[in-house]
Amino acid sequence: MRNSRRGEVDPFIVMDVMEAARQAEAAGRHIIHMEVGQPSTAAPKAARDALTETMQSDALGYTVALGLPALRQRIAKLYGDWYDVDLDPNRVIVTPGSSGAFLLAFSALFDAGDSVAIGAPGYPSYRQILKALSLNPVDLQTAPENRLQPVPDDFAELDVQGLMVASPANPTGTMLDKTAMTALIDATQAKGAAFISDEIYHGIEYEAKAVTALEMTDDCYVINSFSKYFSMTGWRAGWMVVPEDHVRLIERLAQNMFICAPHVSQVAALAAMDCDDELRGNLAVYTRNRQMMIEGLPKAGFTKFAPPDGAFYVYVDVSDFTNDSRQFARDILDEVGVAVTPGLDFDPIRGAGTLRFSYARSSQDIADGLERLARFMRTHGHV
Amino acid sequence: MRNSRRGEVDPFIVMDVMEAARQAEAAGRHIIHMEVGQPSTAAPKAARDALTETMQSDALGYTVALGLPALRQRIAKLYGDWYDVDLDPNRVIVTPGSSGAFLLAFSALFDAGDSVAIGAPGYPSYRQILKALSLNPVDLQTAPENRLQPVPDDFAELDVQGLMVASPANPTGTMLDKTAMTALIDATQAKGAAFISDEIYHGIEYEAKAVTALEMTDDCYVINSFSKYFSMTGWRAGWMVVPEDHVRLIERLAQNMFICAPHVSQVAALAAMDCDDELRGNLAVYTRNRQMMIEGLPKAGFTKFAPPDGAFYVYVDVSDFTNDSRQFARDILDEVGVAVTPGLDFDPIRGAGTLRFSYARSSQDIADGLERLARFMRTHGHV
Repeated sequence: MRNSRRGEVDPFIVMDVMEAARQAEAAGRHIIHMEVGQPSTAAPKAARDALTETMQSDALGYTVALGLPALRQRIAKLYGDWYDVDLDPNRVIVTPGSSGAFLLAFSALFDAGDSVAIGAPGYPSYRQILKALSLNPVDLQTAPENRLQPVPDDFAELDVQGLMVASPANPTGTMLDKTAMTALIDATQAKGAAFISDEIYHGIEYEAKAVTALEMTDDCYVINSFSKYFSMTGWRAGWMVVPEDHVRLIERLAQNMFICAPHVSQVAALAAMDCDDELRGNLAVYTRNRQMMIEGLPKAGFTKFAPPDGAFYVYVDVSDFTNDSRQFARDILDEVGVAVTPGLDFDPIRGAGTLRFSYARSSQDIADGLERLARFMRTHGHV
Repeated sequence: MRNSRRGEVDPFIVMDVMEAARQAEAAGRHIIHMEVGQPSTAAPKAARDALTETMQSDALGYTVALGLPALRQRIAKLYGDWYDVDLDPNRVIVTPGSSGAFLLAFSALFDAGDSVAIGAPGYPSYRQILKALSLNPVDLQTAPENRLQPVPDDFAELDVQGLMVASPANPTGTMLDKTAMTALIDATQAKGAAFISDEIYHGIEYEAKAVTALEMTDDCYVINSFSKYFSMTGWRAGWMVVPEDHVRLIERLAQNMFICAPHVSQVAALAAMDCDDELRGNLAVYTRNRQMMIEGLPKAGFTKFAPPDGAFYVYVDVSDFTNDSRQFARDILDEVGVAVTPGLDFDPIRGAGTLRFSYARSSQDIADGLERLARFMRTHGHV
């Protein structure tokens, strides 16, 4: 059967690691999962309880396309609580995960053939979704001295119709502070391009609060999700904040492309937003794990990384040891049973010399994993 | 802020009706809802119970992109049970509603600028999703003598890369029998175009079983959902069956565009598939309602329609009474408190002379609605 060219997107290289890990576990081996991009915790208990109760009395049919009004209001309130930003709930759109928000944003902002700048390394699906929508992802090769975040000079001369940033970023965990983000917003707006801020890891931050683009401008798209801080990955609920004059445009697209975000997930998400005690407990684990990683990775021989400001990843330069991160990850899995993500998923060029370690699992797993990694590095004479 | 041309899709005209109905109800009026496109029933009780139980023990993170293996197997079994088709579960892809399936199918099959033929009247979102993906929807003006379903002659001379059909169709409820669908498949394949069969209303059929395209060919995309027969609209869970050599292509797209369908909804959907008693009870209501409509609409003065083979709609030619179905629907709502859908949503040209009546609600609502419609028609001298 015929197929399109745009549909031929790249596979996730980490899938090979995950499949090899699955096979190893099926064969009885114990594997430490440092490749995962999600919390191991469930949605907050009160969120699950709220859904159980609502399912007794509500048919849970379609919601309106923009999402449950109470949830939109509660999300708007979060911007007051977290950032002291006064946000009109009408600008909040509930989406089927941040994935749904990307599809809506890219469709609303760009026509086929347009170019959108993204930082490399970065979340691999940015590139693939853009391609599937007949757009041109333009990788900005970010600099280590900028902590692998883009700066205006990286795209000043490029003909792009949009810039997408992430802070905290996946895979690096580094953030843009107010000055850095303001410079990017100004440079983007000066070109007449659209500024999109992926803030999915907000709430998971360690030494400073993450900055939302909405502190600086209303003329942007902000994307967030219940997946990470709110520990609801599989529920597929996220949100987007858009300029007031884009709400109707997005509403029409959302009606047609999605009808609505999952009603059950919207009900649970609304309750999850009042579960700060439980969620801060999850955060305490990430905070402890991060400290273990910052101390343990250098001892194991992995010294080239920036301590993450947020999220639950450490992105390590391993180019002193390999020029094939895929094989290196495979060797670590085979020899010491730790699954990690080759950097090629995040940066098709320089990723051959990098690895991403996730510390989203239990602290015991992190301790065991670091020990195993140290053993691997000793065995290969890298320390 | 900049926006794209492709993002400027048409609004649903029925939204005006729904908003007017909401305002009328807020002002204390009693409205009969014949505009809705969804069951008023909840997901089967056993499905909700299964989710409540699973939420106790499972973190419900991401599933694999193609969906829970047990659910894919159970869906494959449905094709044996319903159609005597032996289907490989590996060809089944669980999607975020049929909406997610459309996005995947169109992205996988067509490049920007390609043309896809769809029947008019038809589900309005086909046209709008195609447009948002930079594709050209080509309306086929179907003939009343073909019960408003396309036939090969409608597109034989057209340069199209795909044909999308729906049986039972929205808004007409008419079906394609094996002969009619075979002719469409053959004509489509002869052009090297892709054949897509929307089978979302399967299971809700009255005098004959609906035919799946998979009875005739493996070289097609079949789209279905848990929304209608399984009464789970708001859960956003559907599925797609694709040719074996397209599974990897779709898997990569789904990983990037959606990550996965909602895990909670997949758990509930799996349980819903074994709830035939409850679901047949819903169907008995639709069957009774359909009979009331077939008898009551002509008595009220609406005589020009084909009795629906499936789904829960009657699509009526009202061109003897109006050439502005939007105003006509508004008048019906204002004068007798019945919300109906103007045909313009389904057919931008001939829809000015048609209305869609839904009978998905309770039989009491249908009885009351028919009485009110008869009163409207008498008042205006149409009977």
